[in-house]
Amino acid sequence: MSSKVTLVGAGLVGSLLSIFLAKKGQQVEVFERRPDFRKIGAVGGRSINLALSDRGWRALKEAGIEQTIKDIALPMYGRMMHDTEGELTFQPYGKENQAIYSVSRAVLNEALMDVAEKKHGVKFNFNQSCENIDLKDIEATFENNEDKDNNERETIKSDVIIGADGAFSAVRGHMQRMPLFNYTQYYLPHGYKELHIPANEDGSHRLAPDALHIWPRHSFMLIALPNTDGSFTCTLFLPFESDKGNKEAFENLNTDKEIMNFFETHFADVIPIMPTLLEDFKQNPTSSLVTIRCSPWAYKSNVCLIGDASHAIVPFYGQGMNAGFEDCFYFNEFMKKQLEKNGSIDWKKMFEDFQDERIPNANAIADLAIQNFIEMRDRVADPEFLLRKKIEAKLHEKFPTRWIPQYTMVTFSHLPYSYALNTGKKQEQIMNEIMKKENIENNWENLDWEEIVAKLDN
Amino acid sequence: MSSKVTLVGAGLVGSLLSIFLAKKGQQVEVFERRPDFRKIGAVGGRSINLALSDRGWRALKEAGIEQTIKDIALPMYGRMMHDTEGELTFQPYGKENQAIYSVSRAVLNEALMDVAEKKHGVKFNFNQSCENIDLKDIEATFENNEDKDNNERETIKSDVIIGADGAFSAVRGHMQRMPLFNYTQYYLPHGYKELHIPANEDGSHRLAPDALHIWPRHSFMLIALPNTDGSFTCTLFLPFESDKGNKEAFENLNTDKEIMNFFETHFADVIPIMPTLLEDFKQNPTSSLVTIRCSPWAYKSNVCLIGDASHAIVPFYGQGMNAGFEDCFYFNEFMKKQLEKNGSIDWKKMFEDFQDERIPNANAIADLAIQNFIEMRDRVADPEFLLRKKIEAKLHEKFPTRWIPQYTMVTFSHLPYSYALNTGKKQEQIMNEIMKKENIENNWENLDWEEIVAKLDN
Repeated sequence: MSSKVTLVGAGLVGSLLSIFLAKKGQQVEVFERRPDFRKIGAVGGRSINLALSDRGWRALKEAGIEQTIKDIALPMYGRMMHDTEGELTFQPYGKENQAIYSVSRAVLNEALMDVAEKKHGVKFNFNQSCENIDLKDIEATFENNEDKDNNERETIKSDVIIGADGAFSAVRGHMQRMPLFNYTQYYLPHGYKELHIPANEDGSHRLAPDALHIWPRHSFMLIALPNTDGSFTCTLFLPFESDKGNKEAFENLNTDKEIMNFFETHFADVIPIMPTLLEDFKQNPTSSLVTIRCSPWAYKSNVCLIGDASHAIVPFYGQGMNAGFEDCFYFNEFMKKQLEKNGSIDWKKMFEDFQDERIPNANAIADLAIQNFIEMRDRVADPEFLLRKKIEAKLHEKFPTRWIPQYTMVTFSHLPYSYALNTGKKQEQIMNEIMKKENIENNWENLDWEEIVAKLDN
Repeated sequence: MSSKVTLVGAGLVGSLLSIFLAKKGQQVEVFERRPDFRKIGAVGGRSINLALSDRGWRALKEAGIEQTIKDIALPMYGRMMHDTEGELTFQPYGKENQAIYSVSRAVLNEALMDVAEKKHGVKFNFNQSCENIDLKDIEATFENNEDKDNNERETIKSDVIIGADGAFSAVRGHMQRMPLFNYTQYYLPHGYKELHIPANEDGSHRLAPDALHIWPRHSFMLIALPNTDGSFTCTLFLPFESDKGNKEAFENLNTDKEIMNFFETHFADVIPIMPTLLEDFKQNPTSSLVTIRCSPWAYKSNVCLIGDASHAIVPFYGQGMNAGFEDCFYFNEFMKKQLEKNGSIDWKKMFEDFQDERIPNANAIADLAIQNFIEMRDRVADPEFLLRKKIEAKLHEKFPTRWIPQYTMVTFSHLPYSYALNTGKKQEQIMNEIMKKENIENNWENLDWEEIVAKLDN
């Protein structure tokens, strides 16, 4: 028995999920608000890029497209910190061969849609705004937004509707009106703006291409991720408004002089490699950073949310896409389990299993992502922090399964995010005690490692 | 300089605020979605009633209507607990003469509207659904919902729009679309249903009229508040759905037999005094319990939320209306301050002051209200809990300003809710230690009171 599935959203999660659904024999059709950007010309290297890590790779592997994506991804083995003098410090993310992978959102999305369409026969409909969801009758109404005046609407009846339509999900908007729907949207006081470092004339990168570059400046920061064409996509994270403690804010950067002064003071080393800095700064929008949580994610056997639609997070742990892909992985696991057992899918049970597994972990990675912002902008430049990381790396080396640093759990393992959050808290308390020891910076190699790791079991 | 103020919502908070605005010379006009219930006949004793306490009274006094309301309110000096055998235990709320006051929502609302209209010339418009708020142009569009087919709409331009339109505020709905608007809606798994105990034939009350009656049953409870006509308004709080630990739930109460069995098992003593139990249970809706938080409450100098529209809470501390009235009190204080200083109101500054003062306290009472549900349904029947209260009452008697029980801070003081929340946490830790002492139930009168109270200052 196969079901007719209406999937709203052809972003990264929607496209990947369509592959899993099609591979499991479901009749899936995708409806996307935006035009088919494969036809209107690739957005290319200027678009935002993302960091793929182990959770994302596992899902891509399960979908059979790991190699396709490997070809368009660049490994980053650690953070390269830039201080205000332009001095560099490198800090590996994990063990020697462990990396996160910079990949262009647009190129990845195109690859996923191509595989879904060409290999698995998924039908994609573009320019379709979701105007209504009838939760009870399982009907989705779309309006063709190429031709708004015509008011051309189509109502699709199906067995299941899945909302993979992002942080400002229209599907969730309709679920939000039902009683007992818990919902939170929380904005950081920071905004972000994309900037650009082009390739050298010979196509080479202007900064080390195998690292994620960070300019940590306490209340704000700049980051840069490499693209395959030799360029870097940069993002400035900065408060919208100034306050007593921090005068630097987007609201104070209006004139060319103010913008250049700001960069000269804080990011002098990027000015020579950002020839379009002023134009980019003035033309690119300043976007906001929202965390969205909700519960439940499903209505009966009828409708379910997935990805950013149910749990949008801030980008500082590089886990937004990875968490969404892990959603798809578990969605597929639960489909498999039911198909093996019953030969068909009981969608009510399926959605219950799915959200029971995913909601606590989505909440945990939301918390972790906010925490990591403070770490990235504030602590990575701190010698004490670097020493902590060294001690933790040593613990991990000596006890590879008993002491796994939180960053490693989140990025290079499939341990539940909630486990990583809770274990990380315990580790932090233990490390706080260690860092209080006298002369720890010289004596750390003589710590009683067994005693430390045993504390984790308390 | 007076401003034209469009006030959305003629509920308790909207009506009271209109009095404060009119008294300060502002041109205020009120728009209410519902019909004028003064004309369609009073809803009377069957409507929900509320518990007025010191914060509410202070606002009513400031508005000059304390005595009008005193005449329609009944004092409740404590909780009367009913156990499953029908045994009663009385626990005072505070000192001998301290009471909270049961008042009918409908009668109170009518009184406030009458004063606003007749004494202060406020114009009320009824049957006006708020269909749109233009935050930038300060325009509110209302549709006359008596005559929906006619689609009669009116757009009002003013200097300021205030949304006092309750937990499902239309004004907030429009603010929610603006960037950086933080918002949370959280539902308890419990629903509630109103029930009724009529007066005796001679008009007297069938239970002690000077107490709030509670039937605490751990995961659920029944409460009853007295009305001036001799009846009681009762509310059953019960989970919507059963789970492993608790089979009792609204979903399992469908037939007459199920309902009667449930009452016979848990609330046998109310059956003889609730002649319309079955009809009420089946006819009255089962409502949900939502907590709503948001931030900011205002947009520039243009629009501001107040009362449930910005902070809806669950009813278990009896503070929803009191918190809303305290909003009005502070709103008036900030108006006064500005009028005294400048002779006119800078609404931007006014709204900033207002929300800086109120948001932390609204969040605190939201937390306290959820906490108090657990206390009311689960702990009030516990002998250890009663002993705690006795010890705390003693501390308060000995140190009236240094140890104020949390319930007293919330109910019988004007200390900020956030202070009550934080101080209550400290008190609880101290009391937890005391309750661990051996044979405390016999030795408690010999405690070292000075040592205990000194711990609060640590």
